[in-house]
Amino acid sequence: MAGFGAATQVRATGDGGFDAELDPLWTVGGKPNGGYLLAILARAAIGSAATHPDPLSASAVYLSPPDPGPAAVTVEVLRTGRSATQVRARLTQKDRTCVEALFTLGTLAAAAAPRWVDAAPPPVPAADTLSRTPAQAPGTGLRIDMLDQFEQRIDWQGVGDPPGELRGWLRLPDAPWDPVSLLFAADAFPPATFTLGSNGWTPTLELTVYVRALPAPGPLRVRQRARLLTDTFVDQVCEIWDADGRVVAQATQLAAYRMPPA
Amino acid sequence: MAGFGAATQVRATGDGGFDAELDPLWTVGGKPNGGYLLAILARAAIGSAATHPDPLSASAVYLSPPDPGPAAVTVEVLRTGRSATQVRARLTQKDRTCVEALFTLGTLAAAAAPRWVDAAPPPVPAADTLSRTPAQAPGTGLRIDMLDQFEQRIDWQGVGDPPGELRGWLRLPDAPWDPVSLLFAADAFPPATFTLGSNGWTPTLELTVYVRALPAPGPLRVRQRARLLTDTFVDQVCEIWDADGRVVAQATQLAAYRMPPA
Repeated sequence: MAGFGAATQVRATGDGGFDAELDPLWTVGGKPNGGYLLAILARAAIGSAATHPDPLSASAVYLSPPDPGPAAVTVEVLRTGRSATQVRARLTQKDRTCVEALFTLGTLAAAAAPRWVDAAPPPVPAADTLSRTPAQAPGTGLRIDMLDQFEQRIDWQGVGDPPGELRGWLRLPDAPWDPVSLLFAADAFPPATFTLGSNGWTPTLELTVYVRALPAPGPLRVRQRARLLTDTFVDQVCEIWDADGRVVAQATQLAAYRMPPA
Repeated sequence: MAGFGAATQVRATGDGGFDAELDPLWTVGGKPNGGYLLAILARAAIGSAATHPDPLSASAVYLSPPDPGPAAVTVEVLRTGRSATQVRARLTQKDRTCVEALFTLGTLAAAAAPRWVDAAPPPVPAADTLSRTPAQAPGTGLRIDMLDQFEQRIDWQGVGDPPGELRGWLRLPDAPWDPVSLLFAADAFPPATFTLGSNGWTPTLELTVYVRALPAPGPLRVRQRARLLTDTFVDQVCEIWDADGRVVAQATQLAAYRMPPA
């Protein structure tokens, strides 16, 4: 494994815990991305349970942003069942609890024709017609180092139709998407709030991701939508389709909304 | 307090834990409803943290359904901050772990004009023109005792437009809605899957609720939507508006889908 796989590896420490190394490359403004941290927790949960290989649901609360460098993950298996295993996992750094998450693990199949789906995937221009988002966005002081590690291509022409929504593609350069990297994909788009003229900082408080199927090889189609922006909080819904147009992941997050300095 | 308030009380046991009494009236087929259990966990979380009075986010995994009767709740405060406190809570019965949840607690204000909202509340016929759902649904063997404890009124004429969606009202007979009872409301509608001709059992694996504002007095307007139903799982989105038409809660749940016996 290389790239995302190597950057999210965990090593069992023998006492039921895991060590991880938070990679400085998978960061936003120098801090590890929330979906990246959720993927690390998932690897520890899967390694600890050893019964079911895939995350079906992952729900995390973000307590304190860790820095790149060593971190520890502790895991508690809550229930082992025939079709699902449920696990609690906690990421700490220097005895500070940074993220805690609850997982339902199971065994996913490739996406098949659903019994029912509410909507077709949204139209997005072909990935090669959209420019890749740079790590250093023009006109901002923020450096998003992780954007050098994968391709994020956003349909900027489509912004505003409808308002509050971003659509585009995600591609890992060196590996196909899998259920664990889908947890990362669910938090890899910019906040949709800035399509609303709201450039505030949106630190995630809670992120829930459902992984619905093994993705087909190829890029992911992503739609990120804001639903309600108040003076203090915003929720966003992220929906992800594989290259065959099947729903493979669905996420929701609640973030604090902080106005930018005037 | 009476009704829902009394049925969700918790008592501190002095060792940092809480006792609860799971009420046989707030059940579906004899088992306590999942949103009802989440409300009990929230009361313990709020009681333990004593810093912030309202749940902003609640994410639960359902491990094993408890029976009516005594239960215990253990709570761990993960982080206490100025604007939010984050807490882990676990409900056990006879040493069996039944539900575990992560909470973000804060202080909610009454719903105000948002900076941005994606859509107006859906039209629903006036509550007094819709019949109240009975506890014993005609033609089914299932008894939903909790439906005697609150008013659920569903727009049956509107089912099918669009497919996969249920709309209606919820009212508590003896108390206004509050942030904790909104956690219950987010799981108080029938599965939208049965509008799709799918009558399978849908036990919840994961439920996440965001409470966005203090609700105005009056009934809640509810929309429950299925998004993707496969042979084995379904996700549902529940959106809740107060009597003034403001978004007050948003929920998503992942449930197993089990075909009914042929």
